[in-house]
Amino acid sequence: MDKILRINVAAAGGPSATTESLGTYAGLGGRAMTTAVVATEVIPTCHPLGPENKLVFAPGMMAGTAAPSSGRISVGCKSPLTGTIKESNSGGTGGQYMARLGYAAIIIEGERQNDDLYKIIINKDGVTIETCNELRMLPNYPAVAKLQEQYGMELGYVTIGTAGEMRMCNSTICFTDPEGRATRHAGRGGVGAVMGSKGIKAIVLDPRGTAPIRKPKNDAAFKTSVKAFAEGLKRHPVTGQGLPTYGTNVLVNILNEAGGLPTRNFSRGRFEGADKICAETMVEIQKKRGGNPTHGCHRGCVMKCSGICVDEKGEFVSKQPEYETVWSHGANCEISDLDSIILLDRLEDDYGFDTIETGATLGVLMEAGYIKWGDAKACIEMVHEMGKGTPIGRILGAGTATTARCFGLERAPVVKGQAMPAYDPRAVKGVGVTYATTTQGADHTAGYAVAPNILGCGGKTDPLAAQGQAATSRDLQIATAAIDASGYCLFVAFAILDQSDTFQALVETMNAMYDLNMTGDDVVALGKSILKQERAFNAAAGFTQVHDRLPLYFSREKFPPHNTTFDVTEADLDSVFEF
Amino acid sequence: MDKILRINVAAAGGPSATTESLGTYAGLGGRAMTTAVVATEVIPTCHPLGPENKLVFAPGMMAGTAAPSSGRISVGCKSPLTGTIKESNSGGTGGQYMARLGYAAIIIEGERQNDDLYKIIINKDGVTIETCNELRMLPNYPAVAKLQEQYGMELGYVTIGTAGEMRMCNSTICFTDPEGRATRHAGRGGVGAVMGSKGIKAIVLDPRGTAPIRKPKNDAAFKTSVKAFAEGLKRHPVTGQGLPTYGTNVLVNILNEAGGLPTRNFSRGRFEGADKICAETMVEIQKKRGGNPTHGCHRGCVMKCSGICVDEKGEFVSKQPEYETVWSHGANCEISDLDSIILLDRLEDDYGFDTIETGATLGVLMEAGYIKWGDAKACIEMVHEMGKGTPIGRILGAGTATTARCFGLERAPVVKGQAMPAYDPRAVKGVGVTYATTTQGADHTAGYAVAPNILGCGGKTDPLAAQGQAATSRDLQIATAAIDASGYCLFVAFAILDQSDTFQALVETMNAMYDLNMTGDDVVALGKSILKQERAFNAAAGFTQVHDRLPLYFSREKFPPHNTTFDVTEADLDSVFEF
Repeated sequence: MDKILRINVAAAGGPSATTESLGTYAGLGGRAMTTAVVATEVIPTCHPLGPENKLVFAPGMMAGTAAPSSGRISVGCKSPLTGTIKESNSGGTGGQYMARLGYAAIIIEGERQNDDLYKIIINKDGVTIETCNELRMLPNYPAVAKLQEQYGMELGYVTIGTAGEMRMCNSTICFTDPEGRATRHAGRGGVGAVMGSKGIKAIVLDPRGTAPIRKPKNDAAFKTSVKAFAEGLKRHPVTGQGLPTYGTNVLVNILNEAGGLPTRNFSRGRFEGADKICAETMVEIQKKRGGNPTHGCHRGCVMKCSGICVDEKGEFVSKQPEYETVWSHGANCEISDLDSIILLDRLEDDYGFDTIETGATLGVLMEAGYIKWGDAKACIEMVHEMGKGTPIGRILGAGTATTARCFGLERAPVVKGQAMPAYDPRAVKGVGVTYATTTQGADHTAGYAVAPNILGCGGKTDPLAAQGQAATSRDLQIATAAIDASGYCLFVAFAILDQSDTFQALVETMNAMYDLNMTGDDVVALGKSILKQERAFNAAAGFTQVHDRLPLYFSREKFPPHNTTFDVTEADLDSVFEF
Repeated sequence: MDKILRINVAAAGGPSATTESLGTYAGLGGRAMTTAVVATEVIPTCHPLGPENKLVFAPGMMAGTAAPSSGRISVGCKSPLTGTIKESNSGGTGGQYMARLGYAAIIIEGERQNDDLYKIIINKDGVTIETCNELRMLPNYPAVAKLQEQYGMELGYVTIGTAGEMRMCNSTICFTDPEGRATRHAGRGGVGAVMGSKGIKAIVLDPRGTAPIRKPKNDAAFKTSVKAFAEGLKRHPVTGQGLPTYGTNVLVNILNEAGGLPTRNFSRGRFEGADKICAETMVEIQKKRGGNPTHGCHRGCVMKCSGICVDEKGEFVSKQPEYETVWSHGANCEISDLDSIILLDRLEDDYGFDTIETGATLGVLMEAGYIKWGDAKACIEMVHEMGKGTPIGRILGAGTATTARCFGLERAPVVKGQAMPAYDPRAVKGVGVTYATTTQGADHTAGYAVAPNILGCGGKTDPLAAQGQAATSRDLQIATAAIDASGYCLFVAFAILDQSDTFQALVETMNAMYDLNMTGDDVVALGKSILKQERAFNAAAGFTQVHDRLPLYFSREKFPPHNTTFDVTEADLDSVFEF
């Protein structure tokens, strides 16, 4: 990871590739890298789909190493969905293969010069760029299949579906999993549209001939710390048992019980059909059919939460949908048919839509009366419309906020234009603070206060109390930014929040890898530094404290069963970034 | 004008009416009134279609008097289109009849309690409110016709079309002209959607039994000043000859000659078909057919620019389209068929769409490739889709910015979400400063620097120079805010900018009407006060100097024939509100 690849799509005769040294970006990985590049090189007031925006891929610092669950990749840009800076994080093979190929970042920049679609092929010998108009308007699965036919199954593929090609605000960038499936996505913020705006359909990452594992600077210390870290992950009940057994969907019952499972477009906190869509039900059915709830989205993961879902005949349909996906199409749309939800997950992966944004959008469409509550068939049809870019598909593909705008509705559960995920901010107020204040638009992963509010990880705080949530969210947002830089999966947080020795082991893995002397304080400083850059970018793009608020109706409408409103004070919200 | 009518749509059993004294709003009219009410009573961060927004109607101070061209009405709210404070100004009978009925403001507030549509009937004896579900989804013309059947031709009608009912961001409030036609609109900013969100379909203004003219405090001085003012309007070539003879469309040839007529979605400044759509051509055809270019939108106007357009059989089609309407559908969409443009004007008045926003939206749709450049038939079809609220209609009805967002395009000619009017900011840089900085979103009427830049009114400045435009725009924005409070048509500005005695006469009419001792300085102070309130509202709603900018592409793309970019400095833009 000692070089940066720049792709200039404005070059005469098609995109050109230049490799350069890290320069001032040395030592950065993941979100620290994407944020630094965007904050340094992108005009904050630019249009996200215009020539001044840049798309940055950066594997986390530990990607490609033998450390467990360390292969995450960050995608950064100015977001077409939110207008803020964006870091969208994914698993899959992309982070590890990029790291093995030695690239700390790929920066795609400039103004596309024609309507051709291009693919970028990167192997140990260098970079080639070719047109790939034969992939035009192919969804991710068939696009990847065509590329695999040509280049092989053992490579990593980074693609956009039709959503990204159509430059939709809800559009992902897809990363193949170890078996070559188009299941892992940098989902949030419309990063696929930025790739589409640059005319890049695919990046082929060919790691053949590279070392299978990046060498640490301090081999012995690395082995010791990795062992301790892996043991810590296995020891914690969430990372060692809950996630491997059930995947993230283990949360349906927990949030439903807590009264914080947003149902019917965030109208109440419990869903009658919860038991039909919960992980326990899904795993039972899938095991009978020959599915697999315990699967890693990238090699070397010990939490293996990604899972594989099959149909009644045992044929692969999609990855095991995340809790947020099950929620967004399930409780939020009052759909209790798991197979429909799994199919929606597949379709959205295929066309390249974020499952959170899409489910929230469909909930708003139901509120508009365009389709009926609970109508799974209509949802499936709508996702096809989105993937084809018909007029209704164009509305929905522009996201939840735009859909509400087009239908003249107030009740769009969004912050900074991005849909809220699967935790109602009136019943889990800590995550409400995160939604309101994160630099990313509503995003649970930016500061997962669900952990202390609901799960009792990293302490136990009252989810319904307004007091203290700002501090909780602040600490988590700082820690998260650092983890997103490391390449470690965010889910390691459950273990490191509760087990100080596991946190120490994590820090030691990085020290051993790079021959550093980082302490916990340095990790905090890294997180703060990332957030400050992001915050400064957003301020220069026109965002103020006024935008660090939930929509007013969350303070007006009482949310059953607790009948609470979001009552964290503005002063508290404004204190989150006081560091 | 000594009372305020409050309509509370949240009342049990349907909207209730309360009349109250002016209180702290005493002495305010038009924009001064709407801005004061919105700035005082509306939570700046509220959703424009939510219960916290209010819709305010306020006749200008001089409405209903014998002063010429003084019958304008202001409509204020937080705008669904821009998210800013909004004052949308209209002619027609609304201002005069409200003033004669004694209401300085109608404030519609609260959360609608059911899906019923209501009409508010106001006469000399008071206010009654009734359901009017029989008008549901009727466009303005048939809705007004039904009301006229019931209440008579001599009343004033204020209605929303289907756009407002569907709460579209592009939706007007319609005011009938003296002959009862649905031709005059508070067009900009989506005020119709706010009326729709409150469940109010119509306001019936019955002036029968009221004094036909409001009495001045100082009769003799009023007569003298009115005479001098009217004489001044008649003396000036624009207000005395240009507007009465040709209407505002006289500008097509002038702007085309100046290279500032935005053509093909703001791609160049001259349109090959200009001579086919210019006022000279329109007036010649209309005179042959029996149309009338010289018609006042309200009684007592001496400029009479509104005009009447008929078809080949001599049947009424629409008012004479404004220059901005002819431009937006003509040059901007490369349509050179006048009859299609007149029909589009009619359709948009009927459904209740702003003609500037609609034409700009259609230009973006053409850029998206959805319909072809110059295809008038397709435009007519699209406006019907908008009026019916089909999916494509919902996209277009949400405005230019949303249409560009849905189709993944950068080139949306908007500021704060509102489409730019008929003057390219790269060729008429003074109006570019106004677009960027006005509190209203892109709006030529907020500070019509076209006057000095192009027409040589109020001095003559170089339209292509960046220097000095900020000061020009500032002065005009201040003057405009004051005129918008007075009830005088903004077009009196041509005369008062050039003729100091006419300006003095205007001030004297107000002094005589209200027994005041206002000077020119007081008029300036009034304008400043309005702008400061608006600016403070916007700041509290999250707008910063970063939003006082044109889209970046206006600084990047050279605009033929002058090949200029918008190069007014950010410091200059930020200086506009330094007063």
